[in-house]
Amino acid sequence: MSNIKAVIITIGDELLIGQTIDTNSAWIAQKLNAQGIDVVRRVAVGDTREAIITALDEEWLKASLIILTGGLGPTSDDITKPLLCEYFGGQLKVDEAVLAHLKEIFARRNRPMLERNLKQAEVPDNCTVLFNKMGTAPGMWFEKNGKIIISLPGVPFEMKHIMEQEALPRFKTRFTGDAIVHKTVFTAGEGESYIAEKIAPIEAALPAYIKLAYLPDSGFVRLRLTAKGSNDQQLEQETAAFQQQLVALLGDIVIATEDLPLEQLLGKSAHKAGLTFGFAESCTGGYIGHFVTQVPGASAWFKGSIVSYDNEVKENVLGVHKSTIENYGAVSEQTITEMAKGALKALNVDYSLAVSGVLGPDGGTERVKVGTVWMAVANKEKVVTKIHTFFYDRERNKEMAAKMGMLLLWKFINGKL
Amino acid sequence: MSNIKAVIITIGDELLIGQTIDTNSAWIAQKLNAQGIDVVRRVAVGDTREAIITALDEEWLKASLIILTGGLGPTSDDITKPLLCEYFGGQLKVDEAVLAHLKEIFARRNRPMLERNLKQAEVPDNCTVLFNKMGTAPGMWFEKNGKIIISLPGVPFEMKHIMEQEALPRFKTRFTGDAIVHKTVFTAGEGESYIAEKIAPIEAALPAYIKLAYLPDSGFVRLRLTAKGSNDQQLEQETAAFQQQLVALLGDIVIATEDLPLEQLLGKSAHKAGLTFGFAESCTGGYIGHFVTQVPGASAWFKGSIVSYDNEVKENVLGVHKSTIENYGAVSEQTITEMAKGALKALNVDYSLAVSGVLGPDGGTERVKVGTVWMAVANKEKVVTKIHTFFYDRERNKEMAAKMGMLLLWKFINGKL
Repeated sequence: MSNIKAVIITIGDELLIGQTIDTNSAWIAQKLNAQGIDVVRRVAVGDTREAIITALDEEWLKASLIILTGGLGPTSDDITKPLLCEYFGGQLKVDEAVLAHLKEIFARRNRPMLERNLKQAEVPDNCTVLFNKMGTAPGMWFEKNGKIIISLPGVPFEMKHIMEQEALPRFKTRFTGDAIVHKTVFTAGEGESYIAEKIAPIEAALPAYIKLAYLPDSGFVRLRLTAKGSNDQQLEQETAAFQQQLVALLGDIVIATEDLPLEQLLGKSAHKAGLTFGFAESCTGGYIGHFVTQVPGASAWFKGSIVSYDNEVKENVLGVHKSTIENYGAVSEQTITEMAKGALKALNVDYSLAVSGVLGPDGGTERVKVGTVWMAVANKEKVVTKIHTFFYDRERNKEMAAKMGMLLLWKFINGKL
Repeated sequence: MSNIKAVIITIGDELLIGQTIDTNSAWIAQKLNAQGIDVVRRVAVGDTREAIITALDEEWLKASLIILTGGLGPTSDDITKPLLCEYFGGQLKVDEAVLAHLKEIFARRNRPMLERNLKQAEVPDNCTVLFNKMGTAPGMWFEKNGKIIISLPGVPFEMKHIMEQEALPRFKTRFTGDAIVHKTVFTAGEGESYIAEKIAPIEAALPAYIKLAYLPDSGFVRLRLTAKGSNDQQLEQETAAFQQQLVALLGDIVIATEDLPLEQLLGKSAHKAGLTFGFAESCTGGYIGHFVTQVPGASAWFKGSIVSYDNEVKENVLGVHKSTIENYGAVSEQTITEMAKGALKALNVDYSLAVSGVLGPDGGTERVKVGTVWMAVANKEKVVTKIHTFFYDRERNKEMAAKMGMLLLWKFINGKL
């Protein structure tokens, strides 16, 4: 049996002038995919009547489910609601439940309710309202000729809330697609080409219903097996077997078979070992601390970070010797070693990670070129240092430094250094 | 004269299963827009022959310029190059310059060059190569019936490099579109509806060739005026006049008329005043330090941050009294005041910002509910505290805490508290 096909249409001039990065589509795609609904295309169009109607007309032919986001706000550049109402031949009418909810929101925020806010309580009489507890713009569910079109606000947390509470449960009862099984092999330290060469025999042996995707990201490559079929138990077993073959063949470069971000793997490792860690961050500015605190419950293993952007902070808070910085520079093996040891002590942690480098575009010297990043991990027994040279722009050099730092700490905690 | 219309097509299954967030499209759109090229649609399709050809056939009719990204890697899920070659009736041939570059990259990385890497040196003989100094997959420029299609790798920094070095300069000489003028008014503290109501008379007075967009983002709203026309000087003057009217009408909630991120405005304010700042971050985990160090040259005003995720770090490094935490809790006005004062001292800065809260999903208590965030700014003369309550998920609560913190510091530095 083939799966339901879906198209995501995002609406808003801000997407076409590049003011906004579309994070909604990826989130929606993940959720649909997990329920066995295939997203076949994503389209972004501007806030014009013609563009929206063209997109609806065209995508209507390609999918059974269309998810629209955006264009539902209270301002005059939001035109989706009346347009959809007309497209499906309905009339706008005040929905009492939505109105009551709007009044409550404005009362809570202590804000007067304006005419344009009252208009947000109007919905087409030929749609089912998808209640938006998180905001003022209700979602809408239309059906026509066996196809479903839903319209959601573009504000990410409102969209997510309506999807989770209202739309996804309805999809579950309406669509019974093929089972989909995903398995991941998360690798670090080698590129796509090397991996592809190495696993060529396995890739050649995959049946047509199991696809392999290479997902490279900042020094890591995730291999993703996706299997589709009617017998989910058999699929699960078969895909797990291929996953095991990949792990065996790739050996040391595999760091996980769970599809989790690195910061979560790091947290899990520390938690399992019952230890705490902390950082001394210079060039990363707090980015590594940000990553690890994205994980709920991080306080069980992460105690803190000394962001020592200025050398004075390296000396005063981390206890790096002035002479070390003077003799060897702030970006050196000697300084990074003292930073890691200093963080162990200042933060009173079992393991520390220190990172110091020159990210660019300026700030390089003859001795320390732009892109040079020293890192060190330490515990009471030992310190391990490592130097990286990144060739990218400032932003990506920073991301690489943060991720390679977390990888080094992960390896240290897992006894791989 | 009407502008050149462009469509961006992104290729890759990872976009349709939601594994990857598409940041390329926004970047490309910004660059094209700045050169007077209108992006009219963005389409994402999977790694299948049929999907790519359908997209090319359909978008071909809607634009004079098509920019494709993705599908150019060395692995078997990358099919774009041979497909484009065939689509435009060419033959794949080894390009010597690309080959020499590939050999150099592999030599530098000390990696053997594989058969599949050699294949990356092959390009269609009917395209112009857009040289990729940053990676192994060359870009390609095809022309047919007066239309241009370019194909770029999906890896963001490679794509950006080719765009900046190869594609954009060529567009500049090829297309002479209408002038486009953008003006921004950056506001904080009020929602879209309030602003829309307030500026309704100005909005009504805008001529058809000047559009106003509302771009809300985490407690801020950017108003963006976009004007198009043939006389760029007149456009500039006219748009600037409307911008001034908006500023006058919106008063206190305006924080800038430059289109810069908050962290850059903060850095500029500090730099102008010749002062330094630093942070004491608890719940934000280093995120604020990350933001301010995205700005090149940040070391001139930012000295560092004490990420005191654990109470022990608040006590040992920031000097918060144990009794304060015991009596009032880690998330309280008393503790945040001591954190801000402690950061002033530990980091030896002129101004400090401290943030401590409960972001969720767990960790709330009867006294301090999930979403509660205390913040304080301090200099030698005074401390100002503020409490926020956010109602979102962990990730967004964190972002709001970081941004509201930076806003508070910006206001303090600019004498608005």
